[in-house]
Amino acid sequence: MRAEIISVGTELLLGQIVDTNAPYVSRVLSTLGIDVFYRVTVGDNRSRLAEALQTALSRADLIITIGGLGPTQDDLTKETIAEVLGKPMVVDPKSEEIIKGFFKRRGIPIVPSNLKQALKPESSITLPNSMGTAPGIIADNNAKIIAAFPGPPAEFIPMVENSLVPYLSSKLSGKRAVILSRTLRVCGIGESAAEDRIKDLISSTNPTIAPYAKSAECHFRITAKAADNETALSMINEMEMKARERLGDHVYGIDDEDLETVVVRMLIERGLKLALAESCTGGLVANRITNVPGSSETLLAGVVAYSNKAKTDLLGVPSALIMEHGAVSAEVAEAMASGAASRTDADIAVGITGIAGPSGGSEEKPVGLVYIALKTPGGVSSTRNMYGGGRRQIKERSAQTALIMIRTYLLGQNPA
Amino acid sequence: MRAEIISVGTELLLGQIVDTNAPYVSRVLSTLGIDVFYRVTVGDNRSRLAEALQTALSRADLIITIGGLGPTQDDLTKETIAEVLGKPMVVDPKSEEIIKGFFKRRGIPIVPSNLKQALKPESSITLPNSMGTAPGIIADNNAKIIAAFPGPPAEFIPMVENSLVPYLSSKLSGKRAVILSRTLRVCGIGESAAEDRIKDLISSTNPTIAPYAKSAECHFRITAKAADNETALSMINEMEMKARERLGDHVYGIDDEDLETVVVRMLIERGLKLALAESCTGGLVANRITNVPGSSETLLAGVVAYSNKAKTDLLGVPSALIMEHGAVSAEVAEAMASGAASRTDADIAVGITGIAGPSGGSEEKPVGLVYIALKTPGGVSSTRNMYGGGRRQIKERSAQTALIMIRTYLLGQNPA
Repeated sequence: MRAEIISVGTELLLGQIVDTNAPYVSRVLSTLGIDVFYRVTVGDNRSRLAEALQTALSRADLIITIGGLGPTQDDLTKETIAEVLGKPMVVDPKSEEIIKGFFKRRGIPIVPSNLKQALKPESSITLPNSMGTAPGIIADNNAKIIAAFPGPPAEFIPMVENSLVPYLSSKLSGKRAVILSRTLRVCGIGESAAEDRIKDLISSTNPTIAPYAKSAECHFRITAKAADNETALSMINEMEMKARERLGDHVYGIDDEDLETVVVRMLIERGLKLALAESCTGGLVANRITNVPGSSETLLAGVVAYSNKAKTDLLGVPSALIMEHGAVSAEVAEAMASGAASRTDADIAVGITGIAGPSGGSEEKPVGLVYIALKTPGGVSSTRNMYGGGRRQIKERSAQTALIMIRTYLLGQNPA
Repeated sequence: MRAEIISVGTELLLGQIVDTNAPYVSRVLSTLGIDVFYRVTVGDNRSRLAEALQTALSRADLIITIGGLGPTQDDLTKETIAEVLGKPMVVDPKSEEIIKGFFKRRGIPIVPSNLKQALKPESSITLPNSMGTAPGIIADNNAKIIAAFPGPPAEFIPMVENSLVPYLSSKLSGKRAVILSRTLRVCGIGESAAEDRIKDLISSTNPTIAPYAKSAECHFRITAKAADNETALSMINEMEMKARERLGDHVYGIDDEDLETVVVRMLIERGLKLALAESCTGGLVANRITNVPGSSETLLAGVVAYSNKAKTDLLGVPSALIMEHGAVSAEVAEAMASGAASRTDADIAVGITGIAGPSGGSEEKPVGLVYIALKTPGGVSSTRNMYGGGRRQIKERSAQTALIMIRTYLLGQNPA
């Protein structure tokens, strides 16, 4: 079964609101094994909605419209569906009763436009809306299905769960395929280089594996289509194994498990305490670490040492060292890490100093130059990095490298 | 001019990511007076992208594609545009040079797939991408314009601002109606309460004013349509004045000017130095402040004092005070702020301590309880706040309140 989604609303088309309904129902359809090939957004305009419906009917079996079921003159979806299907609009007595009851219970006088919501294209069925007054409709002639839903997510989502999914599941029973996905999260290697390692796998058509570049890491999504869950899962597992063989330790997590979550878990498993000394990242590493529930079990403290005086007073970096090498130097990064560790009795500490820009760069030390040091029980070392992009990208890439350096060290340490 | 937007990417079609680029560029086009009638999403599939391009060419003058310009085999947009236009792909020497330079500067070996990004449909022009390696392209035969952009928002948004808008503005000069918008950013008042104050203005049809709720603040967008810029601007100015009369100091900024930018500017104007002492916000306030270019002129240091020992060692909070009142208390918040100020010689300091959850709450001190203290030359005071939501929301709302407290104090101080 092929589906097409049509989001209806001028406020969507003008960009005044972001459409989260269409991605949501796309994910739902994918779990039912239904392909979505096109998604279209049109405004509250009858002729353009009619054109979008005609086009969708020519290339999809299931058309889902979202929006335009309200009581106002702008709300045209049901009328346009009726027009495209060549059906008259008729009153749905049950909907009429529900709408009247809704207004009566709230003590609000009903206006004629509210009763417009009880109309439906002839021979369609209505879908109850427990969160609002606009029922959904399904017009199903056994060749093509058109399902129309109201746009507010608080109404749309329960109606998809309670009406659309059971309806489609019963239509598909016996001939339904399952599509499952898993995302491998990869760090410390560029998207092209990572893809180069698995390029033979990328040509696979089922399961597929496809790259998604993120701002400072890349993700590979494995998707398998099969008759049942078990088969799909074992196809995914096999592909994951092959990808891991080629990508090794660059694979740090799966699905929603982000790098900070992995690092916090590894630190806690090893019984190690962490401290952070940040200059150019300005607290971003601390912020990411403390987004992880339970991070207080490992994070003792972070210092955002923006001024030289703060580097000296709060982290004990000798002024002479800053004078000699400059605040942005390997020596100062290492002294920041060592200072953070000794002042907090942490086992592991990170020191980051660099130039996030847009100003402050020089020929010798340009914007994007960042030194990152790691202090461990075995000693202190640092890396010199050059990042492109604006201020925020430089902060993000630096924070990512710091987390990767912690993880790389921890990979060599056994859990306690 | 009529535009159609085509978002390209299987991850969009499957609903794995929500498309914010298309709404963004829709808003930009609307300010140029360009109508958008259809928006389409297709996967990384050559034939379906070709069909979408053909359909768009049949009904729009300007087609904007977003995504599919990366180096991988999945990235097909430029090739498909060339196919639809009947043009061969040719090497763009300038892009090739830029891409080679990009890899050289970072010391990363270049792989052949990276050079694919230097290809373009013959007779198209390339648009520079300062944030990544994929240039955009514009193919313009004076009847139809196709503009192709990379998908990462950090690349897309600057390219729209720096390349697309000037290009279209010059094409349109002399024959456009103007739609202009301005966003008033409001803090320290709930959306309903704010809307209540301006409810008589919301019924205005031109200019319009409409609320957009954000996670910890709310925005009101004023939009005016007029024959020329001057008229539209004066309509916006008049509406802004009326809204400001009703909302007073709650309006803290306009358009992209976020709260941290306003606070940093106010601090610098007043010649005041800032220090931060964060517990439950874990560096989020420092991260937001340091996202602002030039923040090093006012921010001396931040301390993320997660453990009690760090509160004592790094901020001088007496252990006895923590014992007596608990780490989450007005007394400790105030001692953190005072300690941060005295250890860094800052004029203003913030201290934040609370329970971000999900664990660590008690009946007396539940998850969401956050004390925020402000130390100024005039003394130290604190607020007790209860926030709902999960860990991240509690961090965000606490950070927002801290910034609002700094701003409120600064509003009473004259610039130097």
